[in-house]
Amino acid sequence: MGSRKTDRREFLKQSASLAGAAALGATARSASGQLPGPEAQLRGTEELVGYGQRSRFVTSKRIPHGGRPSPDVFGLDFHIATPLQDQVGLVTPTSLHYVGTTRGAFVPDIDPAKHRLMIHGMVDNPLVFTMEDLKRLPSVTRLHFIECAGNRASRRHVTVQETHGMTSCAEWTGVLLSTLLEEAGVQEGGDWIVAEGVEEVKGASSIPMSKAMADCIVCYGMNGEPVRPQQGFPLRLIVPGGEGILNVKWLRRIKVVDQFYMTYNDYGHLRQDPADAALSLQIGPKSVITVPSGGQQLPGPGFYEVRGLAWSGAGRVARVEVTTDGGRNWFDADLRGEPQPMAHTAFSFSWTWDGKPCELQSRCIDEIGQVQPSRAEVARFWGQPEDQPPSVKGQDNSIQPWRIDSDGGVHNAIA
Amino acid sequence: MGSRKTDRREFLKQSASLAGAAALGATARSASGQLPGPEAQLRGTEELVGYGQRSRFVTSKRIPHGGRPSPDVFGLDFHIATPLQDQVGLVTPTSLHYVGTTRGAFVPDIDPAKHRLMIHGMVDNPLVFTMEDLKRLPSVTRLHFIECAGNRASRRHVTVQETHGMTSCAEWTGVLLSTLLEEAGVQEGGDWIVAEGVEEVKGASSIPMSKAMADCIVCYGMNGEPVRPQQGFPLRLIVPGGEGILNVKWLRRIKVVDQFYMTYNDYGHLRQDPADAALSLQIGPKSVITVPSGGQQLPGPGFYEVRGLAWSGAGRVARVEVTTDGGRNWFDADLRGEPQPMAHTAFSFSWTWDGKPCELQSRCIDEIGQVQPSRAEVARFWGQPEDQPPSVKGQDNSIQPWRIDSDGGVHNAIA
Repeated sequence: MGSRKTDRREFLKQSASLAGAAALGATARSASGQLPGPEAQLRGTEELVGYGQRSRFVTSKRIPHGGRPSPDVFGLDFHIATPLQDQVGLVTPTSLHYVGTTRGAFVPDIDPAKHRLMIHGMVDNPLVFTMEDLKRLPSVTRLHFIECAGNRASRRHVTVQETHGMTSCAEWTGVLLSTLLEEAGVQEGGDWIVAEGVEEVKGASSIPMSKAMADCIVCYGMNGEPVRPQQGFPLRLIVPGGEGILNVKWLRRIKVVDQFYMTYNDYGHLRQDPADAALSLQIGPKSVITVPSGGQQLPGPGFYEVRGLAWSGAGRVARVEVTTDGGRNWFDADLRGEPQPMAHTAFSFSWTWDGKPCELQSRCIDEIGQVQPSRAEVARFWGQPEDQPPSVKGQDNSIQPWRIDSDGGVHNAIA
Repeated sequence: MGSRKTDRREFLKQSASLAGAAALGATARSASGQLPGPEAQLRGTEELVGYGQRSRFVTSKRIPHGGRPSPDVFGLDFHIATPLQDQVGLVTPTSLHYVGTTRGAFVPDIDPAKHRLMIHGMVDNPLVFTMEDLKRLPSVTRLHFIECAGNRASRRHVTVQETHGMTSCAEWTGVLLSTLLEEAGVQEGGDWIVAEGVEEVKGASSIPMSKAMADCIVCYGMNGEPVRPQQGFPLRLIVPGGEGILNVKWLRRIKVVDQFYMTYNDYGHLRQDPADAALSLQIGPKSVITVPSGGQQLPGPGFYEVRGLAWSGAGRVARVEVTTDGGRNWFDADLRGEPQPMAHTAFSFSWTWDGKPCELQSRCIDEIGQVQPSRAEVARFWGQPEDQPPSVKGQDNSIQPWRIDSDGGVHNAIA
């Protein structure tokens, strides 16, 4: 550890001298040099005054998970991946937050004035809440990521949107589920809840009562405004650190029950071994470098800031390490701000590329000491051959390698 | 203080017993009761898959500052206020972030590939950066509010959007200005900078070098995506805690100079007394209750969560106090998460309304001990009669009173 810190200091000293404008190709001109003059002025419409939009030069968008658009974009089982390679900062822009549904591009069209949330089952006082009722109750605002358990990289993926685009992070606001359950009065033996959304398939998830009482949130707000339709308008259950499907959208019913019940949402969890299913409730630890990442092109040797995201379903990110030589040496990355529990944490790492082929990786260490594994380690854990995808049965939180060729091209280096 | 804490504990105990569903009018039904069934399904377009939008039932929007739409919406001197009464959580939704410009609804239409940032004047190495250059440099991601110095309430205002809508908070990402200035090499005597944006009026602001080197950020990111055109796409200077006009949009030039220079942006700052002008550089401390606020209607006596925002240009919010009896008793509000320096801090306060007329207020105490003043105190500070607006010369960070009538109507209580 001591020697790594020394390396890091040396490294930063070196980087600082290379971080200069000359290394970037920035050109010095006299103060009278030409700068772009007054550009065309865009006249805002009344609509744009009311609710602004992004620049016409910004075209970043979500894509169907796993790659290029396909005819099943509007099919039944459908996921949309966020463009992680374009994200700057920590919060995922709401319009670009990933979507996972069983109904594809279709979302329920819910009038919030008519929406109700029922709490029933093994409780003393079954309750029905209107949206206005919920907004009068004590609320919390917390940053949380959501990640689909199916967010896994394959060697055929090109970009980080394809390998890791099924995770996003937002500021969620709502009422702690414990507040509602305490009001209803959970009865002896009510050890699970089933949370159901307004979906034709009656999408629902079973969640242990211990988790429900710990930190789950019945959310009406996301990034400062009402939850969007694709995210569950008007009400979504947030299960911090739990796999994506537990975060039930269009929430309308919570039933307190005595055991795990199989529901439509569990179609993907039906496994022979109950231990495998239990293990899949909690996400991570995981991280990925988003800049530079697959499909990008480095203009040439020189200074770069390597950037990425890290997260863990077990709590806060404690540390992120980066290697630029395929895993021989690891260095601490800088974390931005104070890591929040079960939230994306942005990291960065000052790096000077010498122009030779190399391989970048990141790994996350969380507050309970879990270390993000390599693909080989994940494969061994699941008892699979190392040359197969490591995640046939469980989640895949393995380290993502990006190879940089001497021409500056960045490529997915999964073997 | 000791007795206030006891009061608070008593109060919370009391609230807890009233916080129940019964107090909200929530009705209990049997598990077989009617809940809204499967609703109509909305089919997403390919455009909505790529970039999502809000529900058609959510119509919250920005308005011209000071009240109802008027013919000068598209005029030259123009400000748009954010709907604080609808905001949930801490971050202002990007589409609803307030806008202050000297060119109204017109914004420069800038191609980022052609945009340049020049650093020149009293420097050893004048520099010109492309957007790609800037994105390779070490960056930071920080939460900061921006508030227009003209954000002031008057007795004619009805809603909190009218009284306080010229402040917003976002996650900003970019390069520290100090990184660029150090690269350029500031010369002896270069004690100020003038920052200029791409505007026909050549909008520019003078900022002391000490502030420029401390924490100013040349931002290309806002809430996870590129800065929006109305916020300065592709580049905005963020001057944390400084008054809004210092946060130059469409930033293209930073000139290191020897003194404060008057520019078009300073039209509002030209005062006889230099001390007044100097005082106006830093915002706050300030706070406002957003729920309940003017124009809202409480459905009846019972439990409510009082919510609001607090901020200070001097650093972190240390404490927020709330009164429900017009200032006789003050109680500590709960702060959400860890307050960030020069960022909005969300607060809440559990309150049971007995149905009698009352007056709610909040006040912010920041980390250097500044206490948000009353309107009378602000008026005295500026040497004005108390029955006049307190802010003719300087900013107005005074306490906002909301009166609640026995019918539940909430009204602006500025005398």
